Amino acid sequence: MSNEVKLYALGGSPFVCRVKIALSMKGIKYENIEENMRNKSDDLLKYNPVHKKVPVLVHNGNPISESLVIIEYIDDVWKGVPILPQDPYEKAIARFWAKFIDDKCLPAAFKVFGSNGEKQAIAEACEQLQILENELKIRGTKFFGGDNINIVDIAADFIAYWLGAIEEATQIKFATREKFPKIHEWADNFLNCQVVKEILPSRDHIVGFFKKKFGKV
Amino acid sequence: MSNEVKLYALGGSPFVCRVKIALSMKGIKYENIEENMRNKSDDLLKYNPVHKKVPVLVHNGNPISESLVIIEYIDDVWKGVPILPQDPYEKAIARFWAKFIDDKCLPAAFKVFGSNGEKQAIAEACEQLQILENELKIRGTKFFGGDNINIVDIAADFIAYWLGAIEEATQIKFATREKFPKIHEWADNFLNCQVVKEILPSRDHIVGFFKKKFGKV
Repeated sequence: MSNEVKLYALGGSPFVCRVKIALSMKGIKYENIEENMRNKSDDLLKYNPVHKKVPVLVHNGNPISESLVIIEYIDDVWKGVPILPQDPYEKAIARFWAKFIDDKCLPAAFKVFGSNGEKQAIAEACEQLQILENELKIRGTKFFGGDNINIVDIAADFIAYWLGAIEEATQIKFATREKFPKIHEWADNFLNCQVVKEILPSRDHIVGFFKKKFGKV
Repeated sequence: MSNEVKLYALGGSPFVCRVKIALSMKGIKYENIEENMRNKSDDLLKYNPVHKKVPVLVHNGNPISESLVIIEYIDDVWKGVPILPQDPYEKAIARFWAKFIDDKCLPAAFKVFGSNGEKQAIAEACEQLQILENELKIRGTKFFGGDNINIVDIAADFIAYWLGAIEEATQIKFATREKFPKIHEWADNFLNCQVVKEILPSRDHIVGFFKKKFGKV
C-alpha cells in the first residue's frame, strides 16, 4: 500500500502542532503544505469544505479534519508509540479531558484576550484552569498520560506554550505559576519532550503574531 | 467479571437518549437512575464533578461523562452490533460529523429558541443544517451509518425529534420539510427504528417541557 501523507498546516497554530506532534510520535513522514489563511488554497477548500480550516490530514487521498479526530485516526492506523490509552476506561477518561480542554479551557482563554482582560472572563478562565490544576494534583503524574505524553497532553499544547506567549504579547497575565503551580510544572515537562521541542514554532513568532492581532504594536 | 451498569439520566434529555440508544443496540441491561436537575444527587456530583450533568454511565464503579465519549466506550467494551465504523477512515469521518452536530448544529438551534427566533440566529442555524442536508444528499443512504444507524445518527437524535417538538412548543418554525427534505426523510427513517422508538420520551412530554421553559404556557 502506498502511504502518502500530506498535512495542510499553519506553523503557528496549536491545532496544527497537535497533529505534528502525533505524526512525529509515530515516526510518520509527511509533506507539510503551509496554508495562507487570507488566501486559502483550492485544495484546503476542497478537503475541508465544512470548516475551511487547518489542520487537514490527507492520507492516500482521503482528507480528515479536526485535530483530535486526526490524532485518533493516526493512532488507529499507525501502531507503535500509543497516543491514546489501550484500556477502554482509560481511553474514555483521556477523551473526556481532551474534550474538556477544547470545549472549556480554550474558549475561556480566548475570551480573556478577546475581551482585553475583562475581569469576569479572567475569573471564568481561572475556574476552568483550576479544574485542570486539581486534576494534575490528584494524579500526581508527570503527564496527563502518566510517564509519557498522550492525547490529553497534546490537546493542552495551547496551555503549555501559547497561553504564556499571548500573555506576553497582550500584557494580560492571569495564568501565573503562583496560581497554577501544577499546570506550570506539567508545561515545563511537556515542553521539555524532544518530540514537542522539535515541532513548536518559536516563541518570538507567536508573541509577534499576537501583538499584531491584538493591536499591541 | 461483574458487569454492573448504571445510567444517571433524565428522560427528556437528547444526550441521555443517545446513550440509551447505544446501550439498547448492544443489548446491555442497566439500572436507570433518574436525576432531578434542580436537586442533583450526591452521586451525580461525585461521578461528574466537572460538568455536574447527565448522562453519566457508571460501569463496575467507573464513571464516564459526555454522551459521545460514553458511546465510544460502550462500543469499545461491548462487541456485537457496531456503533462506530470499523474502518479507521470511516470511523474518523463519523467522529467528524458527530462533532459537527455537537459543535455547530446544536448550539445554532438552541440560539434560535433562546433568541425567540431572531432572524440572524435562524439564518445561522439554517446554514449549519444545510451542510447536513447536503451531506445526506451526497451520500444517498438511508442513515448516516449507511443501511443502519451509527454514532452520527445517534448524535443527531436532537435534530430528528427534539427540534420539531421545540418548534411546536415555541411556534418558531424554521427547519421545515420544504427547506430540508433529506433531513426530514432521514429523521422519519431514524424515528422508525425499533431501538429508537422504544427509547424516546413522548413528544407531548417534550413539547410541554419546552412550552414551560420558553414561557409559552
